[in-house]
Amino acid sequence: MVAYFAVVQKDPGTKARLGRLSTAHGDVQTPCFMPVGTQGTVKAVLPRDLTEMGCQMLLGNTYHLCLRPGHELIRDLGGLHRFMGWDRPILTDSGGYQVFSLGKTRKISEEGVRFQSHLDGASQMLTPEKAVEIQECLGSDIAMVLDECIAHDASRDYVKISTQRTIRWAERCLRARKKPDQLMFGIIQGGLFEDLRRGCVETLSRMNFDGYAVGGLGVGEGEGQLHAIGSFTAGLLPEERPRYLMGVGRPQDIVQAVRAGYDLFDCVIPTRNARNGTLFTTRGKLNIKRAEYSNDLRPVDDSCSCYCCRHFSRAYLRHLYMAGEILSSQLNSLHNLYFYHRLMDKCREAIRAGQAELWSGICAAGDTFE
Amino acid sequence: MVAYFAVVQKDPGTKARLGRLSTAHGDVQTPCFMPVGTQGTVKAVLPRDLTEMGCQMLLGNTYHLCLRPGHELIRDLGGLHRFMGWDRPILTDSGGYQVFSLGKTRKISEEGVRFQSHLDGASQMLTPEKAVEIQECLGSDIAMVLDECIAHDASRDYVKISTQRTIRWAERCLRARKKPDQLMFGIIQGGLFEDLRRGCVETLSRMNFDGYAVGGLGVGEGEGQLHAIGSFTAGLLPEERPRYLMGVGRPQDIVQAVRAGYDLFDCVIPTRNARNGTLFTTRGKLNIKRAEYSNDLRPVDDSCSCYCCRHFSRAYLRHLYMAGEILSSQLNSLHNLYFYHRLMDKCREAIRAGQAELWSGICAAGDTFE
Repeated sequence: MVAYFAVVQKDPGTKARLGRLSTAHGDVQTPCFMPVGTQGTVKAVLPRDLTEMGCQMLLGNTYHLCLRPGHELIRDLGGLHRFMGWDRPILTDSGGYQVFSLGKTRKISEEGVRFQSHLDGASQMLTPEKAVEIQECLGSDIAMVLDECIAHDASRDYVKISTQRTIRWAERCLRARKKPDQLMFGIIQGGLFEDLRRGCVETLSRMNFDGYAVGGLGVGEGEGQLHAIGSFTAGLLPEERPRYLMGVGRPQDIVQAVRAGYDLFDCVIPTRNARNGTLFTTRGKLNIKRAEYSNDLRPVDDSCSCYCCRHFSRAYLRHLYMAGEILSSQLNSLHNLYFYHRLMDKCREAIRAGQAELWSGICAAGDTFE
Repeated sequence: MVAYFAVVQKDPGTKARLGRLSTAHGDVQTPCFMPVGTQGTVKAVLPRDLTEMGCQMLLGNTYHLCLRPGHELIRDLGGLHRFMGWDRPILTDSGGYQVFSLGKTRKISEEGVRFQSHLDGASQMLTPEKAVEIQECLGSDIAMVLDECIAHDASRDYVKISTQRTIRWAERCLRARKKPDQLMFGIIQGGLFEDLRRGCVETLSRMNFDGYAVGGLGVGEGEGQLHAIGSFTAGLLPEERPRYLMGVGRPQDIVQAVRAGYDLFDCVIPTRNARNGTLFTTRGKLNIKRAEYSNDLRPVDDSCSCYCCRHFSRAYLRHLYMAGEILSSQLNSLHNLYFYHRLMDKCREAIRAGQAELWSGICAAGDTFE
């Protein structure tokens, strides 16, 4: 077996680990945060700037890309990497999360999930086999199995039934797999029930996936449960495989999850917040819309070396936001993604140094500023 | 007198000339195209990328900036250059063109023009003195006098009255001037009437402005009249001062105006067209929305070396446009502005070489593609 994942170093005081994940498009140092490139672009950021800020891997959304421009077209054009001008690794989700977000218009069966396109209302069927086929067309380095992302307040009975189906879907994904250089990760569901999470881990571990993701967290269950179930589940997962906490999220959540042993993260928070005028700093969040910044010549974060902080004041960024300028989204996104990448640098450095006190120096990015 | 403008070389076969315009923020090689930075930003383009593509000077809009964030705020923050992170020259317009575009809500008198802000409807008065004061607060390198931009179908009587008032306003602007390191350009009006243009040139020339702009063209009068009046007026202007053809426009118009002896240009066409999906190429315009580009792996222009053409296909750019992605505006704007800057390179090269045949090789950018 190819050693596509190696735990390079373990933190003595936590469950955090440094790792190296090898893919068809190069290596990724973990823990790693993946910016979300929903429609074949990280919104408002040039690939060149992602590379420059140290971005190692992107997440692409199967649901959006299969509807527009279409996965077959992307395959015919040479795959997603070439299409979007990104030569580093890409992980694609299965499309399940977006389909389940469509609410009432989707219908689940053993076969898969029927839904209506948000673009033209056309009825579509997403099955485990289809999810694999689409991701193989896209040519991502890591594909995810189709799963059902369960609402946090679902009943135990429903979570059990759903998780069992997710397991059967995972098996079907494995069987449908044809692309030897694409890794495939299984997804652990089980809601907020430890026994169901444990059962899911045990079954999926036997299927020998290339990595394991934990889904269904960060969907409204509250911080306490997120970290309780997140840590519990991480502790059950095989040591020698990468662990991916899907869709989580806030800087403090990521740091805590790194300490619990997770290796991979993705979230729209840095880019979506950027477009809404919320900026991350080492002292917390800053809402650039506030009138107090209208004559503030300081950069967003005076300890930040991003292009935005090196050249522009809070006053200018506030003006751009208030004037509805596209440059507002561009500069804010550059800053927030830079912040997230430096956050991951600090996590890796804390593990490398093996010094507990370094963890407390990592930005907790609370909800207030100053 | 400081030699802030020097004609370096003249083209033997045309009236085109190479020049060097020196400002408080450095030199500009003319003929030069200025991208428009209406609200303190060239829409969707980082200053870094403007510098990289060889952009020498920007145009800022007095009307927009005085309403939001306010010229006094910009002055207090260190001026427009610092505010927007641009250390090369800036020319500001007087605000007149935008105010006159407001139509019925503005009222002209000898004093100036009263208008309602498009932001909050507040009544405001723009006078020649105010236009100078605002531009001095902004700290631009070149200020423009307040003028009335006359509709192309105005009667001779109205054009005459208006042009005389524009001349009186120009005198008031000169008297109001306090900033020694800011150049001030007069504006020639006179509509489509040669004698009125001539009269305006004669009077303003005696006032000894640092440069002369020709206004009121490219506003619907048609290509024939644009070039007839444009060339006629250029021929009347003092040789030793920079000549600026305001707001014109299309690549072929710029090339023709360079040949008529103009040195400076500005226009929103490259950036506005970019956001609307129209891209300039050496073979004409390309409408990226067209279905035929959905699987076209070629760059927008295979003879172009811009970041967009080096990394992305027409298929990808079409997808971004159709998906409403911000990156569409970013990449299209980078390409179109790069095209305009290379167009000016070619004009300067044709003058430098003094070879008539080089002019015919410069893109005429017609209205069709292939």
